[in-house]
Amino acid sequence: MNINTHEDRLSLSVDLGDRSYPIIIGAGLLDDSQLVQSYLGCEQKFVVTNETVAPLYLQQLQQSIGDASRLAHILPDGEQFKNLASMEQIYSELLAKKCSRDVTLVALGGGVVGDMTGFAAATYQRGVSFIQVPTTLLAQVDSSVGGKTGVNHPGGKNMIGAFYQPRAVLIDTDTLATLPGREFRAGLAEVIKYGLICDQEFLAWLAANMSRLVQRDAAALQFAIHRSCGCKAGVVAADETESGIRAILNFGHTFAHAVETATHYQQWLHGEAVGFGMLVALDFSHRSGFLSAQDFQMGAEVIHAAGLPSKAPASIEGAQQILDFMAVDKKVKQGKLRLVLLRELGGAFVTADFDADLLEKTIQDYL
Amino acid sequence: MNINTHEDRLSLSVDLGDRSYPIIIGAGLLDDSQLVQSYLGCEQKFVVTNETVAPLYLQQLQQSIGDASRLAHILPDGEQFKNLASMEQIYSELLAKKCSRDVTLVALGGGVVGDMTGFAAATYQRGVSFIQVPTTLLAQVDSSVGGKTGVNHPGGKNMIGAFYQPRAVLIDTDTLATLPGREFRAGLAEVIKYGLICDQEFLAWLAANMSRLVQRDAAALQFAIHRSCGCKAGVVAADETESGIRAILNFGHTFAHAVETATHYQQWLHGEAVGFGMLVALDFSHRSGFLSAQDFQMGAEVIHAAGLPSKAPASIEGAQQILDFMAVDKKVKQGKLRLVLLRELGGAFVTADFDADLLEKTIQDYL
Repeated sequence: MNINTHEDRLSLSVDLGDRSYPIIIGAGLLDDSQLVQSYLGCEQKFVVTNETVAPLYLQQLQQSIGDASRLAHILPDGEQFKNLASMEQIYSELLAKKCSRDVTLVALGGGVVGDMTGFAAATYQRGVSFIQVPTTLLAQVDSSVGGKTGVNHPGGKNMIGAFYQPRAVLIDTDTLATLPGREFRAGLAEVIKYGLICDQEFLAWLAANMSRLVQRDAAALQFAIHRSCGCKAGVVAADETESGIRAILNFGHTFAHAVETATHYQQWLHGEAVGFGMLVALDFSHRSGFLSAQDFQMGAEVIHAAGLPSKAPASIEGAQQILDFMAVDKKVKQGKLRLVLLRELGGAFVTADFDADLLEKTIQDYL
Repeated sequence: MNINTHEDRLSLSVDLGDRSYPIIIGAGLLDDSQLVQSYLGCEQKFVVTNETVAPLYLQQLQQSIGDASRLAHILPDGEQFKNLASMEQIYSELLAKKCSRDVTLVALGGGVVGDMTGFAAATYQRGVSFIQVPTTLLAQVDSSVGGKTGVNHPGGKNMIGAFYQPRAVLIDTDTLATLPGREFRAGLAEVIKYGLICDQEFLAWLAANMSRLVQRDAAALQFAIHRSCGCKAGVVAADETESGIRAILNFGHTFAHAVETATHYQQWLHGEAVGFGMLVALDFSHRSGFLSAQDFQMGAEVIHAAGLPSKAPASIEGAQQILDFMAVDKKVKQGKLRLVLLRELGGAFVTADFDADLLEKTIQDYL
């Protein structure tokens, strides 16, 4: 790797054989043209971003890219535009600009931009290179790492997509300065998730340092993002295409998706729903006899401290509605719902063997 | 592999590590439920076919699949439906039928059906299994093997797609009985291609046996398909994603694509255009001093014997029009057109170093 080492930067690698790639985390990365260019080919570069992020960071990034043609496609902002129609626009733009197979796509933005740019890279001329430059906390610790790409379909979220790895993930922590508070807290949900599912020591650190994170202390953020990406990278390296262990990354997500679907994705940000879902999953892990009361309490307190919701939206009709939506989850295998639960803090497992009545009763208590 | 071995069947393997898969070639495969089922999971099976092939073979295949739900999607027939709108319909149907990640898609038809089904498999819920059951000669020897999947875009053919390998390719030579003569001859173009680019012995066999092939002699067909798939499998195994040697499979195709584009894909079948393109490429290889007059003549005679066209469509305006369309080919690298040429029968190579005036003159002689 031909980049400057800065003492104030942290990095790690996602180990996937010939698809391995680095994650670099630090302040001021967007301005470091040497770093940015080290991950771009010598051919065309094409940035995909959205109308919110473009005015903030596009020019800065284009300067570092140093390509006079400054190719870019600016998407409207929002999950409702994460669909095949938007993909068609990206393809058309790539073709109009005569981008060849040697083009490198650059995803500048949050999860929606990253997922769509990655899917464009996976499918344009049967696959071109791309790098992730995530600008939201959620994208920095979750969606930009691991190669899940895709779009929504009227019949379901993320139903169309591919596993396709970026060439690098460049996380400039400075971009979090412009992130709205609610989105920032939503990102913290995924950070907490890593502590809960695979890193008890990190969870203890989060319990002690949540106020520093909420105040966006730069050093705390960099540490938390690095630790989160490390957990995710380890799980992804062990199971790239989610045939096994990777499912633990969905801790809290089956509950979250059900609430999101029931509320037509209008009520909560994804991270908020995940925060709520993790609370229910923690409680159910406890009531099912896997997790001690003390561990459940500690996990719940960290979630509360991040300012995440602890009750379902009022519009939810009842526990059965959530259960119904859980039944059509992607994690359903051979007709059986599988849940990610904790047997200890930092220790998650997947099971289809649980008490359905107890599950309903647990959900009931969070309505 | 848990299948019956029939003496009258030929098989080979595409060696791609954990993505390796078998190709089985013989008569009556569609009726062999044990064989068919050995490549299907125990979950849902979903056949994609088209309105021409469905009345001929869908019921037969469904019987062998033995799945009472008989899920299928029937596309309209034609290259003009190979687009994202048709993909959207396949996705909708898969979701409507609640197909999970465990579904196996089955492509029953020609190249368009295979390319689209493969792309659906590559992108539905980030990738599900699929098998190829090609029913045209072209699909049997070319598009069903090698994992190229995708759709067209108004801006270019096959511009959206992925490399995604099937779990098996089942080639029932009986299906060729219903193939229209013109389509059959078009398929022969790709068969001849393998002789020209990598198998001199096979080319000699083709020179001696073309009349048997044209009469659809069963044994001759099975041999030719097996030999063709063997050549393709070897090249694909050496270069899955076309970063090098795989480009030789495009012998004749750069000329062919230019003619197809110039005539809006209305005039010739793809194989016919390839036959013509190979003729020009052979001649240009000879005039450039790579290929002997004798070898050029022998190659040209095999192409003629298959009944493939030897003059460009009358609507082509001139050599420059073909050259212009060649300049926007996917094989253009760093602004330079690269051609696949022969230095001997069975020996292809890729070069960007050729005499452009001589090329124009050569094309001129085929108008």
